Amino acid sequence: MIVIMRPEATEADIAAVCQRANEMGLAGHPCYGVQQATISIIGFDESVSPGDFSSLGGVDRVVRVSTPHKLASRQSGLPATAIKIAPGITVGSGLTFVAGPCSVESREHIVHTARLVKAGGASMLRAGAFKPRTSPYQFRGLGEAGLDYLAEAGAAAGLPVVTEVMTPALVEKVAARADVLQIGTRNMQNYDLLLAVGRTDKPVLLKRGMSATLTEFLLAAEYILSAGNPNVILCERGIRTFETHTRNTLDLSAVPALKTLTHLPVVVDPSHGTGRRELVLPMARAAVACGADGLLVEVHPDPDRSISDAQQAISPEMFAQLVRDCQAIFAALHPEAARTPV
Amino acid sequence: MIVIMRPEATEADIAAVCQRANEMGLAGHPCYGVQQATISIIGFDESVSPGDFSSLGGVDRVVRVSTPHKLASRQSGLPATAIKIAPGITVGSGLTFVAGPCSVESREHIVHTARLVKAGGASMLRAGAFKPRTSPYQFRGLGEAGLDYLAEAGAAAGLPVVTEVMTPALVEKVAARADVLQIGTRNMQNYDLLLAVGRTDKPVLLKRGMSATLTEFLLAAEYILSAGNPNVILCERGIRTFETHTRNTLDLSAVPALKTLTHLPVVVDPSHGTGRRELVLPMARAAVACGADGLLVEVHPDPDRSISDAQQAISPEMFAQLVRDCQAIFAALHPEAARTPV
Amino acid sequence: MIVIMRPEATEADIAAVCQRANEMGLAGHPCYGVQQATISIIGFDESVSPGDFSSLGGVDRVVRVSTPHKLASRQSGLPATAIKIAPGITVGSGLTFVAGPCSVESREHIVHTARLVKAGGASMLRAGAFKPRTSPYQFRGLGEAGLDYLAEAGAAAGLPVVTEVMTPALVEKVAARADVLQIGTRNMQNYDLLLAVGRTDKPVLLKRGMSATLTEFLLAAEYILSAGNPNVILCERGIRTFETHTRNTLDLSAVPALKTLTHLPVVVDPSHGTGRRELVLPMARAAVACGADGLLVEVHPDPDRSISDAQQAISPEMFAQLVRDCQAIFAALHPEAARTPV
Amino acid sequence: MIVIMRPEATEADIAAVCQRANEMGLAGHPCYGVQQATISIIGFDESVSPGDFSSLGGVDRVVRVSTPHKLASRQSGLPATAIKIAPGITVGSGLTFVAGPCSVESREHIVHTARLVKAGGASMLRAGAFKPRTSPYQFRGLGEAGLDYLAEAGAAAGLPVVTEVMTPALVEKVAARADVLQIGTRNMQNYDLLLAVGRTDKPVLLKRGMSATLTEFLLAAEYILSAGNPNVILCERGIRTFETHTRNTLDLSAVPALKTLTHLPVVVDPSHGTGRRELVLPMARAAVACGADGLLVEVHPDPDRSISDAQQAISPEMFAQLVRDCQAIFAALHPEAARTPV
Repeated sequence: MIVIMRPEATEADIAAVCQRANEMGLAGHPCYGVQQATISIIGFDESVSPGDFSSLGGVDRVVRVSTPHKLASRQSGLPATAIKIAPGITVGSGLTFVAGPCSVESREHIVHTARLVKAGGASMLRAGAFKPRTSPYQFRGLGEAGLDYLAEAGAAAGLPVVTEVMTPALVEKVAARADVLQIGTRNMQNYDLLLAVGRTDKPVLLKRGMSATLTEFLLAAEYILSAGNPNVILCERGIRTFETHTRNTLDLSAVPALKTLTHLPVVVDPSHGTGRRELVLPMARAAVACGADGLLVEVHPDPDRSISDAQQAISPEMFAQLVRDCQAIFAALHPEAARTPV
Repeated sequence: MIVIMRPEATEADIAAVCQRANEMGLAGHPCYGVQQATISIIGFDESVSPGDFSSLGGVDRVVRVSTPHKLASRQSGLPATAIKIAPGITVGSGLTFVAGPCSVESREHIVHTARLVKAGGASMLRAGAFKPRTSPYQFRGLGEAGLDYLAEAGAAAGLPVVTEVMTPALVEKVAARADVLQIGTRNMQNYDLLLAVGRTDKPVLLKRGMSATLTEFLLAAEYILSAGNPNVILCERGIRTFETHTRNTLDLSAVPALKTLTHLPVVVDPSHGTGRRELVLPMARAAVACGADGLLVEVHPDPDRSISDAQQAISPEMFAQLVRDCQAIFAALHPEAARTPV
Repeated sequence: MIVIMRPEATEADIAAVCQRANEMGLAGHPCYGVQQATISIIGFDESVSPGDFSSLGGVDRVVRVSTPHKLASRQSGLPATAIKIAPGITVGSGLTFVAGPCSVESREHIVHTARLVKAGGASMLRAGAFKPRTSPYQFRGLGEAGLDYLAEAGAAAGLPVVTEVMTPALVEKVAARADVLQIGTRNMQNYDLLLAVGRTDKPVLLKRGMSATLTEFLLAAEYILSAGNPNVILCERGIRTFETHTRNTLDLSAVPALKTLTHLPVVVDPSHGTGRRELVLPMARAAVACGADGLLVEVHPDPDRSISDAQQAISPEMFAQLVRDCQAIFAALHPEAARTPV
Repeated sequence: MIVIMRPEATEADIAAVCQRANEMGLAGHPCYGVQQATISIIGFDESVSPGDFSSLGGVDRVVRVSTPHKLASRQSGLPATAIKIAPGITVGSGLTFVAGPCSVESREHIVHTARLVKAGGASMLRAGAFKPRTSPYQFRGLGEAGLDYLAEAGAAAGLPVVTEVMTPALVEKVAARADVLQIGTRNMQNYDLLLAVGRTDKPVLLKRGMSATLTEFLLAAEYILSAGNPNVILCERGIRTFETHTRNTLDLSAVPALKTLTHLPVVVDPSHGTGRRELVLPMARAAVACGADGLLVEVHPDPDRSISDAQQAISPEMFAQLVRDCQAIFAALHPEAARTPV
């Protein structure tokens, strides 16, 4: 059950709903959206009715939600979530292009790349300072220095930055320098980490686990929402199958399926999703055609020299083409939108 | 090794190439394309060189092909295969829309549906007369009567017809009434059947097996080509994964990947690929955006009353919308093509 | 609904049950077991009750079966099916060891191998005369000559023979020379072939499809049973997963799971199931430990020189060790069985 | 490259090897085993030879290891790792039975259960105090109180205890009360957590990720080893496939495959691996038959009343039967071992 508060509801109103829940042996998990707060009421529901909450102060309406994910559910009747990242940059309204190298390789490298992706049409810069690597002996990123370089590059190019945080102890540090916190695919079910980013006020880009079902994916988002943070961007990045030609199998049907299940925005990462440079552009186009709110693309000034994941990085020129193609498709499907917002 | 013959090469020229192969302890598998014949030379290749064949009469050129699939390989340097089905209907040039109900339910039903899909923009009619069903106790189609009704409906609506053939003994009968023979997903590795349709002169629509790799898929096509039939249309229809929200996981990355591996046309079946009506339209759009040559869509005048696979059938109105959207995307990506051929 | 006939029921009794079903708009599929016939009644069941059939002549009892597979279901209350192959050789009672090379390579080769596997403890000889191969250019077996050699080798060594049949047109020919017909994994859903072997009186060894669920596997068996042949041996041979270290992932949990779902015997093929010689022995032991009725193992006098699937073939010495280990485990788990029947 | 030190090598010897590696632009990762330390040398290997290290003080020998996992590799020539947990309890020598409820439900409950599993033959007690749950609204364990109850129950029954740690911040706290630290399947690639447990001196039970390849699994172990902790127990617990009859597909072939790849001990969890009570006993038997060093089994005094994962818990009586059956199989395969060590 979801209690949707009125925009003018106060902290005291929210607390009163949670207290009523407690008195009934239930628990209330508030989540603070831009327009309004919503509270997920959890517990043994048989005898509980919307009327137990609807007359409390500040309550707009109470909705029964049958999906396992509650705050993330579209059954709540809430409008699609649009997440404002910076002036003029909103995920969930028009197309958002997030681009950058797999990892921050050096200060010069990331500043240079930031300018190139900005010129190609990027709306955000993404690169890894802390890199999860399958082997302990692989390059694991520049760490805190990488964070600084990334923030500097974003500022220089006028782009908000996205970067991965891998462990709760570093959430505060990363949140101090990044505009969006990325949770990587290996950490989709790292629950302490999900709760930690849920307690910040930074938007979170949550990547789908390698073999996560859509329900598990949405419940991972629910962890973040239930900790109070309403700004979750879902990212489809390929699932693990028997096919070996591609690194993963990009599950684009997840995009329209998620759109029926949740009000959260959905972006697609065709770089990890395919692992092959020549497939990035066509799959980016397909992602937009089936309704994605944006793309996450690995772009490198000299793709073959990427320190990590070289086979899937594309050049700035290919990226500019990708942006043009995706905008053409978006415009063809949304003739009402005179201009594609970037 | 592939021997590509000149357009004016004679049967005797082709036979001479095969005989040379035999003399060298190799085997030649000729395949008769519209423009020219090609011959796959198979055996222990170390000591064999292109020069052993290039001076024979009628030979245009000889190409070493390193992929396991030979006649189907793009390494042959042959142009993309365009398959003429009927006057004005060519698969592999522009977009082709193949539509119809899962199965022929009655004479009236299929005649009626044919008219509706024609009006919606279909270029071919597809329905099952012989249905492969998981249980022996499910409806297995109307059989030969269904074939007759389908042919009649196609003629009435002016649409070539596609239908599945499940066993070698029926190939001749089905080929006599259908314009395109479909090999279903369960039969992708039914090699006697592949060879049997390879010996006909009808185009073959080959569906990818539920858990077939791209290499296996192309080798199944190679069976047909190596039996002499050059006209194979590949169809991506979803693969089996752990995800249960969708019936299958539509692997759209197979489309651009196949385009790099083969010259054969590729169509997509978003109906079986998702198993959910609400996902058919977005995934059809995505298929076109990543380069598919056409769509195979289950359309039913009254989708909820389909005898089989009701959840994935769409209405004629939805189909017309699908055609419009796909053509808009195709036009946006191919501004040079003034009009989309149908 | 399953109608179980009395042992003394006549053909006329069975026909009368089927006719009653027809009169009620249902269909009856009789299957002729050693002890008794069973008839699967299919159709719209709401209004139908056991009493509609239980008073007919020759009827023992009528059982409602809720699983999609009917004749194969354990809910029928029928005892475990034991299939007599030859005097002293029964699948489904004690352990059965089926062994032999991947393919019949020559007359001498198969005669020699037959003697070696017999000496090692085999109860049946298996080899391919018709081989399903992923590529049309691979060795596809010796065909009918291979059949003859296999039959001769079996006779010489005193072993019944198992071999694959790939297409309905050859069922009669193969059945004339083999004691057990194998349906390969690629053909598990080749329904015309299933029905064709279902019309013979030869036992059928049915391999699980590469990505078949247990329900689909049992429904494939049901096709054979519903065509009248009660003697189906199920064979787990590995499923397709993301793991690449092994050729397939041997799903041994299928063995005890199938034992709860069906009365048919279950054997395991650890050779295809792993694709690696060093894993065959441990997985054979594991199969027996979890309840398999037998093993299907690729054995070659000189494994590294196998024409096909060399990496998974084991030597006759390893096979003899496998038989000893498996019998030791069987004895440890069945102390009541003084001697393991072979 | 692995440098294997002599038993009598000193800290200074180890430091000297690492320093030599540093001087050559490489990195040394020492791991402190019971018998000897081993040091993994990582970097650009072309020009580096064993001789660069073999003459240093305390070095026994230097081994080139071609697998991506180094310290965990069997190529090092190190004997199988046997991990002493408590007097008389060694994993990797004979069979180890780890048993207990999914979660600590209360003080009384766990003390009672501990006694029951001890009586049934358990050598260790396992239960969750911190539970990773797919939904934020499910019971997540008793937390620190649960830890206390578990330690108390273990002490009362005379059983070492195993419990999961989910986040680096809690490693110290859990290590203070548990004898073995479990890393759950969702955290197999939570690298900060792996490094954190790698810095303790407690044995670690590492569960395979839901869709982890064997290489990824071994590299996760390598993270722990490379942080200095040699005592890693690998646990196969089922992988994610298309099959829905079982919760996961227990990949028993991983057991003998891992035995060829690593010297670390391997245990099997048939409870999560199948998710079905009736399959736990047969799959436990199979695990022992293919070489597992032990079992991890969910046992509950009243299985149907388990707070979590009730369908897969078995009763103490079933557990006692499981121990007997597994020991019988182990004895049949190891006649030289007069008595099974527990």
